[in-house]
Amino acid sequence: MSEYILNLLPLHEGEAEEFQAIAPDAVHVYARSGTVTPEQIAAATVVFGWPRPEMMRGAASLKWFQTMWAGTEEYSGFLPQGALFTSSSGSNSRSVAEHMLTSLLAVCRRLPAYLDSQRSHVWKDEGPMKTILGGTVLVAGAGHVGSDFAKLCQGLGAKTIGLKRTVSGPVEGFDQVQAMDQLDALLPQADVVALALPHSPQTAGLMDARRIALMKDDAVLISAGRGSVLDQEALAAAMRGGKLWGAALDVATPEPLPSESPLWDVPNLLLTPHVAGGMRLEITRRRCVEMAQENLRRYLAGEALVNLVK
Amino acid sequence: MSEYILNLLPLHEGEAEEFQAIAPDAVHVYARSGTVTPEQIAAATVVFGWPRPEMMRGAASLKWFQTMWAGTEEYSGFLPQGALFTSSSGSNSRSVAEHMLTSLLAVCRRLPAYLDSQRSHVWKDEGPMKTILGGTVLVAGAGHVGSDFAKLCQGLGAKTIGLKRTVSGPVEGFDQVQAMDQLDALLPQADVVALALPHSPQTAGLMDARRIALMKDDAVLISAGRGSVLDQEALAAAMRGGKLWGAALDVATPEPLPSESPLWDVPNLLLTPHVAGGMRLEITRRRCVEMAQENLRRYLAGEALVNLVK
Repeated sequence: MSEYILNLLPLHEGEAEEFQAIAPDAVHVYARSGTVTPEQIAAATVVFGWPRPEMMRGAASLKWFQTMWAGTEEYSGFLPQGALFTSSSGSNSRSVAEHMLTSLLAVCRRLPAYLDSQRSHVWKDEGPMKTILGGTVLVAGAGHVGSDFAKLCQGLGAKTIGLKRTVSGPVEGFDQVQAMDQLDALLPQADVVALALPHSPQTAGLMDARRIALMKDDAVLISAGRGSVLDQEALAAAMRGGKLWGAALDVATPEPLPSESPLWDVPNLLLTPHVAGGMRLEITRRRCVEMAQENLRRYLAGEALVNLVK
Repeated sequence: MSEYILNLLPLHEGEAEEFQAIAPDAVHVYARSGTVTPEQIAAATVVFGWPRPEMMRGAASLKWFQTMWAGTEEYSGFLPQGALFTSSSGSNSRSVAEHMLTSLLAVCRRLPAYLDSQRSHVWKDEGPMKTILGGTVLVAGAGHVGSDFAKLCQGLGAKTIGLKRTVSGPVEGFDQVQAMDQLDALLPQADVVALALPHSPQTAGLMDARRIALMKDDAVLISAGRGSVLDQEALAAAMRGGKLWGAALDVATPEPLPSESPLWDVPNLLLTPHVAGGMRLEITRRRCVEMAQENLRRYLAGEALVNLVK
């Protein structure tokens, strides 16, 4: 039986033809998540993209679904038994890593204060700045994002240490990889502490008041991944007390962050609304398309799929 | 006759001993620019640092003066005939390059808009972002700063083209070096245009309305060096008309920029008050000290000095 490939990816010119060249015998249907019909979902044997999770309940013919994002929790309970489920894990890691680097450099050079002066039309020198050249960057989480971020930091001349639950050899971008239980021992040595961890029972509240206190007084804290990893009230209190050079958070709890949160106005704390990843860069979109194409080749050849969730 | 070395550099612990080890037979006098006396200036055969220019008129014994900065115009006319004059050119190039990179990434990721939202306690997604990965960065000025900036851009995956008055072989950090008269031909290809030029009759007004119009509609313009290189009113007008993705300027004309300038409030234009260089990073200070030590060795050995102005 021929495959019915329901392709909800945001394709550019020429990319539909790329899919057709990989699977010339399949039926290819192109749609957007917002306009896809229940009939299309019911007929599809393969789905690429990001349909609303509840629509996937009607995927009666489904053999394989590849989501466009790294996260997969949203589809838990909505996919038919027996269907293969793959993610696009790693597709936006460069985007997230660039955002982390950008925010880190921005607080190192006090851009929040400079922007405030700019808005007031005031030409005001804010004094000393900070560089990561020659400094130590400690990254909690040595997955795709942590590794990409560490590579960028190495390129700027920093020494990088990655922390993983289980150490199983070197990870690209890191001068050293150590077990997560070394966190407390390493925090006092780090000039930058970056959190690149998913939410889990092990990571929730990991960066608490006690661990923030272990950081150097002039260190920078960066948080991507999930907001639950950080005790953000403890961070705000510590920074208002003069601890840390600065901080940059792209995630918070809850999201959106309520307007009365103490985080918004902490000096030299940069807060962005969970925009590090997503589909904000063309390179991320293209990587998702390539990941779908690579797995489609493997699927048709009967090979193991990359990023298999179940 | 023994040398009298008047050392006005901001030294850290142990660094005075480093100078003494290089010149054990010299008289070493340590002072700060603000507290140095006319008697010290009159007695000094060697001066390191940044005394007020008019004080140098009284340097009756001077054989050699090394300023702490890259720029040397300030001392023109104030130094005795026949004394050697060296600069610390290159000492802050990494700092300036990091500031250019930081500002570039900040506008690529729309941090000015995100900071505005943060100040209003608003969690708001600003949509697409920009990366320099795979893009072309055109740098007008391939000296210390241009080269260091280009190296950082290469590390992030950009292709780099440097423009020099006279091409005399490869320059570190640049995939290509071309003559400045290729500027107009190259502007339409660049995703980022960076100005890293001193003020001179050749550079004044170089980036004018016509050349801004030659840039890609979604390019980013970065300006360090001197504000006179850019027609800033033309830039403000072009950007308000929708031209360019963003811009980041660390220099302006005049400085400080008057509060009524149209530049302050241009969307996604980041303006910092000439703070890219100076003595804001410890690595810059240490580099100045090392440059003075290296030249002191050369001076005592009768070798040619580095960064000789005259």
